Amino acid sequence: MAILSCQEIKNRIYNKSEPDVQLVVTPLLEPESQLQKGSSSMDIRLGTHFLQQRRTDIGTIEPGKAKSPEIISVLRTVVPVGKEFILHPNQFVLGCSLEYIKMPRDLSAYVVGRSSWGRLGLMVATAIGIHPLFHGIIALELTNMGEVPIILRPGRTIAQIFFHTIEGEVDPQGVITHSAGDSIPQAIYDFPDSELERIIKMGKD
Amino acid sequence: MAILSCQEIKNRIYNKSEPDVQLVVTPLLEPESQLQKGSSSMDIRLGTHFLQQRRTDIGTIEPGKAKSPEIISVLRTVVPVGKEFILHPNQFVLGCSLEYIKMPRDLSAYVVGRSSWGRLGLMVATAIGIHPLFHGIIALELTNMGEVPIILRPGRTIAQIFFHTIEGEVDPQGVITHSAGDSIPQAIYDFPDSELERIIKMGKD
Amino acid sequence: MAILSCQEIKNRIYNKSEPDVQLVVTPLLEPESQLQKGSSSMDIRLGTHFLQQRRTDIGTIEPGKAKSPEIISVLRTVVPVGKEFILHPNQFVLGCSLEYIKMPRDLSAYVVGRSSWGRLGLMVATAIGIHPLFHGIIALELTNMGEVPIILRPGRTIAQIFFHTIEGEVDPQGVITHSAGDSIPQAIYDFPDSELERIIKMGKD
Repeated sequence: MAILSCQEIKNRIYNKSEPDVQLVVTPLLEPESQLQKGSSSMDIRLGTHFLQQRRTDIGTIEPGKAKSPEIISVLRTVVPVGKEFILHPNQFVLGCSLEYIKMPRDLSAYVVGRSSWGRLGLMVATAIGIHPLFHGIIALELTNMGEVPIILRPGRTIAQIFFHTIEGEVDPQGVITHSAGDSIPQAIYDFPDSELERIIKMGKD
Repeated sequence: MAILSCQEIKNRIYNKSEPDVQLVVTPLLEPESQLQKGSSSMDIRLGTHFLQQRRTDIGTIEPGKAKSPEIISVLRTVVPVGKEFILHPNQFVLGCSLEYIKMPRDLSAYVVGRSSWGRLGLMVATAIGIHPLFHGIIALELTNMGEVPIILRPGRTIAQIFFHTIEGEVDPQGVITHSAGDSIPQAIYDFPDSELERIIKMGKD
Repeated sequence: MAILSCQEIKNRIYNKSEPDVQLVVTPLLEPESQLQKGSSSMDIRLGTHFLQQRRTDIGTIEPGKAKSPEIISVLRTVVPVGKEFILHPNQFVLGCSLEYIKMPRDLSAYVVGRSSWGRLGLMVATAIGIHPLFHGIIALELTNMGEVPIILRPGRTIAQIFFHTIEGEVDPQGVITHSAGDSIPQAIYDFPDSELERIIKMGKD
């Protein structure tokens, strides 16, 4: 009643009787290897899309201020399976999972690095929480903390997901949707900043 | 029975009958937005105080060695709501939450970044565990891993807290107290180093 | 039924009747201090072995490609208890725990930094999941995000482990073994890359 064992994750994926508690992972290329016996997590693979910030004409950035990713200079790179992306020391790139994931309403999850990569200095995720009913691909904030360039290959297992059960009801109307299917995560959200306006107003009252 | 759903977090905050299991969050400026329907966490806002290390006259640092924060050169900055703090690439600053939080005795929590910030390269917390009965504001270790300066605005939602239930009894005498109320987190603790003395002595015996 | 309280961790360590659910931690130098009353985690200490990547003759690295750690230039440093290791700003080093840990089959764990170190800018772990039945020492990916060199002393408490209960059966045949006992974590695993071969083949079909 907490973290799901590997067997329990498989049950969620393959037991298609109750759609509400079903976990969707697609493509799941090697179930036996990605859901290794004795583990309590599922390995996910590196996707083919990468987003890099370019320093050319950007002064400063913050979420919600840019109208679209095009306004700040973002370099989009597609690396096909079989090719590689070199991540240099101190470089940051926004990657994504190969897998599309649909969470059931009674699970949350954490995205965590894998030790074989961490030991080379690769940091895999800085925003690691996945909410119930999320559906989409997982954004991976990849940073090379080490001294040596690291070769990233789309298709390789690069992170793992630990699934946690939830206590209490989850409102299905509060679905948190992210970029889904064949699209890539957006670097900048155009979310309303009314909250901050209100708080600033409070400060002035 | 693991991670609390948003509804369950609300129950903890608003059900004031049992003080032992009550969660205190103040100020909670926008409950509907910070405890979004369908999520399993609570958003917290960036506070107004920042601590930076200055390279002027510091050789090396370690916890428990400095008598006070003044001895190592720490720059304290207060940024009022409505103003901004610019975090440059590779810069590290110690921030804090706007909210004061008092944990009940039967919950632990993890502080996790929000994806809208993570995608810009902001790493929000490196020491993410919150213990039962903790009370105080949350220290946020903010680092810009990206290529472009990031604008931080006190009052914006910057991180999220996932609450976990606890198995087993927690001794209320072991309360872990942090800087509370209107004060800011201390950069350096003056904790006793008797442990290490003992271990070094073991090594010599 | 989720995160183990400090008392529950002690029960797992000292209740030797059921080997399957027993947690082994050795050496546990100061149980009262490392398993502090009122907390929900166990502090672990910094070990004496450090691995650094050298930039001399390494072009790029990736997991599974090097035949042995000797082929990429890895500098191994042993720092006895009582001596220190200086971690400079932006430096990354692979350390390890002083403790050898053997997980029971019904627990997973997360390795998390301690706030006294985090506030100095030390990031302690990037690959933080520990699986059931893991046995070995814990690899710590140490990075100094701050502005000032940090003194690391083997024997000091440097991180904490939060233990989580598991839902579902764990197959004891899927034991994930890491470098155990007196050895140090390997920087590079020589794991088979047949997965990737298959995926590349899929892409070509």
